[in-house]
Amino acid sequence: MFHHTHGYKSHSLQLELVHRPTGPIIPGHTFRVSAVPAPVPSDLNEGDLLLETLYISLDPAMRGWLDDVRSYVPPVQIGEVMRAFCICRVLASRSPKAAAGDIVTAMNGVREIGILSDKHIEKPAFLPPGGKTTDLLGVLGMTGLTAYFGMMKIGNVKRGDTVVVSAAAGATGSVAVQIARIQGAKRVVGTAGSDEKCRWLVEEGGADVALNYKDPEFRRKFREATPDFVDVYFDNVGGEQLNMALARANRGARFVMCGGISQYNAEHKQGPKNINNVITMRIRMEGFIVFDYKDEYPTALGQLAQWLAEGKLKRKETILKGGVRVADEGMVQLYKGGNIGKLLIEVKNPDEERQSRL
Amino acid sequence: MFHHTHGYKSHSLQLELVHRPTGPIIPGHTFRVSAVPAPVPSDLNEGDLLLETLYISLDPAMRGWLDDVRSYVPPVQIGEVMRAFCICRVLASRSPKAAAGDIVTAMNGVREIGILSDKHIEKPAFLPPGGKTTDLLGVLGMTGLTAYFGMMKIGNVKRGDTVVVSAAAGATGSVAVQIARIQGAKRVVGTAGSDEKCRWLVEEGGADVALNYKDPEFRRKFREATPDFVDVYFDNVGGEQLNMALARANRGARFVMCGGISQYNAEHKQGPKNINNVITMRIRMEGFIVFDYKDEYPTALGQLAQWLAEGKLKRKETILKGGVRVADEGMVQLYKGGNIGKLLIEVKNPDEERQSRL
Repeated sequence: MFHHTHGYKSHSLQLELVHRPTGPIIPGHTFRVSAVPAPVPSDLNEGDLLLETLYISLDPAMRGWLDDVRSYVPPVQIGEVMRAFCICRVLASRSPKAAAGDIVTAMNGVREIGILSDKHIEKPAFLPPGGKTTDLLGVLGMTGLTAYFGMMKIGNVKRGDTVVVSAAAGATGSVAVQIARIQGAKRVVGTAGSDEKCRWLVEEGGADVALNYKDPEFRRKFREATPDFVDVYFDNVGGEQLNMALARANRGARFVMCGGISQYNAEHKQGPKNINNVITMRIRMEGFIVFDYKDEYPTALGQLAQWLAEGKLKRKETILKGGVRVADEGMVQLYKGGNIGKLLIEVKNPDEERQSRL
Repeated sequence: MFHHTHGYKSHSLQLELVHRPTGPIIPGHTFRVSAVPAPVPSDLNEGDLLLETLYISLDPAMRGWLDDVRSYVPPVQIGEVMRAFCICRVLASRSPKAAAGDIVTAMNGVREIGILSDKHIEKPAFLPPGGKTTDLLGVLGMTGLTAYFGMMKIGNVKRGDTVVVSAAAGATGSVAVQIARIQGAKRVVGTAGSDEKCRWLVEEGGADVALNYKDPEFRRKFREATPDFVDVYFDNVGGEQLNMALARANRGARFVMCGGISQYNAEHKQGPKNINNVITMRIRMEGFIVFDYKDEYPTALGQLAQWLAEGKLKRKETILKGGVRVADEGMVQLYKGGNIGKLLIEVKNPDEERQSRL
């Protein structure tokens, strides 16, 4: 019945919430790493899968999951395993949806081994030419889908638009910039937090102009970079950049409200003082959660895969080694802006393992 | 050629901007009243009309026209006549659009007599049963149209919705509340700045609940008044009420961004700290200017007139006597929230005049 080729670990490491943060995540304090007895195939009910985590996705949204407020998902509770998207390998299955050995994506959390119902896993249809496993959390996963639906459905980007993307060197932003480019935007401006990121954005990432928001002249440069004002603003940061985008909005601008990373750790949050421009400039400011477009994932993934295969879409990733034990440090790094592109934690590298068995 | 039945005044009073305000309008300082030689029929070019103002509309938007910023209309310049919507009578016409004696609406400004091109006047199609001249600036004018397009097109109010309208006893808010009611909203909550206004809202104005935002318990009462959260928020005030509405927004809520009167006079404007709820609750926050719907005015006015004739739509107005000389005081009263319903200045009462001639 159960087909699995891997030796079992007796224990599974997992990251549990112990102190709900009011400000930033504090490594070693907000969470604790626990070693729990690893679940085994005999624990599975009908429809369940036993999963081992290969890669964990680190996403800005994770900080929001720690706030005890009404949101699109319930907050992680004290004592619970930290929620996270993962690439997993199926160790054992009592579901027709995936078999032992299959690679799946799932909200398996920051843990090494877990059991999930098949309702909560996705078996990727394919990896396109040039695609790799980690793309399933990046350009061919929630990250790419978020950029896709945000730019296409909310931003409704059109030929000739001036598009600004904040956190443009981040996982979602970097895909958003390139989609705007592909869709014929006249001018794509990206903002980021270091000169290195800005160089990458212009040289590799498809931006016409990249601006370092830490530059003292950022406000002036932002104005100068948007001589025809802003038609689409894809926001990943909130705060003062959102405020500046409001000041530069064109009539009928679309504001794609995707994230607000500048505010997630703030104890005193900042609202955009220029909100009245929503009225005077007839701005449509609209939020979305990628899950809302579930029915359209296949179409979107097909398009993203095609662009990837054609070389129109490039991606960059930063992979942290060290597994569950480094996840809290990784989240902190995410909010400090250390990474270009997608930030992942490697829990188990399936290729190295394969090589070691050869 | 020129048909006019009224004696001419040799001078016309007009309100001119002299000091651009940074905070509130200061009566006697921000503007000055000037007496200028009144234009006469021989001043008309082809397509022009000579107009005498009967009523001046006082609108919260007027404060925004004084700020030297990019907006949907250019700012009023120092020395210019203050911009205002008016009901006028045509004294003389070189246009086929209206003849001497006709009643028209026009952006004639805060002045007694003026010349406008016929591109800038509207000849009302009709006054429905029960309608009166001043309705042309209220429920059957820009005010009613603003409420109509905001609630119908942006708010997309549906049967079963919970609707909150801020400044609900004001000119636009009071119509917005009633349109929500007519469209089948489950619950309509209005906010206002006095207990008298709140009583009027519940007893006459069609609201289920009315809340005084000056009440120290306002926050708690706002929560309690929206047990199923908020599907449509029609905002006329911005500031803290907008922030509270964000906190209470339902998934997929529509925020009709119509005005932000709480912030118009503020030197340090307040942005909504809960802006991140736009993302988590997938809010569509959209601004509009009634002029954008010009092509649809006839349809909307037909509907508003029908509701008025059927008694489904009630209106209240406050008319200040004293003409151009009291306009700056009137604007200040508007921002202090002194009026229920539409605030107008009477420059010349056509009915009294008619009676005096009998």
